[in-house]
Amino acid sequence: MLYLVCYDVENNKIRTKIAKLLEKQGLTRVQLSVFVGLLSDLDKNIILEKIEQILDKKNQYSFILLPLHQDMLGTLTEFSTNPLDWEYLNGTKLCMVI
Amino acid sequence: MLYLVCYDVENNKIRTKIAKLLEKQGLTRVQLSVFVGLLSDLDKNIILEKIEQILDKKNQYSFILLPLHQDMLGTLTEFSTNPLDWEYLNGTKLCMVI
Repeated sequence: MLYLVCYDVENNKIRTKIAKLLEKQGLTRVQLSVFVGLLSDLDKNIILEKIEQILDKKNQYSFILLPLHQDMLGTLTEFSTNPLDWEYLNGTKLCMVI
Repeated sequence: MLYLVCYDVENNKIRTKIAKLLEKQGLTRVQLSVFVGLLSDLDKNIILEKIEQILDKKNQYSFILLPLHQDMLGTLTEFSTNPLDWEYLNGTKLCMVI
């Protein structure tokens, strides 16, 4: 399943830790605090378990992980200097044209 | 339809303009650069048209607007000091418990 993850975390070190974890789990950074990518149920659970450990509960934080249905990608709108290849991210295209 | 909007914009003034536009159109700020809310097709098109005008094409930017299917809200995961009432945001609950 394709997921989008976005987060707001006050603590710089923790923000960096979260980004590193998401990249290690194969997600693609699409914005400073937004990642997208395919995850198995196992990988998703690993991420959620680690995020719960990493988060500094003394400060404000918000972490959202949401599944993106295939049908939605067709109706998504993106304005960007580096537009994403959503079909590639979703695994429906096997190579990325660069 | 419920939408999620997230953006990365270098220019501070433009970032503020985008936030003000999204709030004016009735979206709820869920993170610094992430908004969620119900939009008619007309409101969505107004937002997209204005965002295209606001964006500073000389600098890096990324603006993503994606629809959230009702089914997905049940499988969404959120860790937050101020968790959102997704049913309220989605219009399936008429009052918010505060």
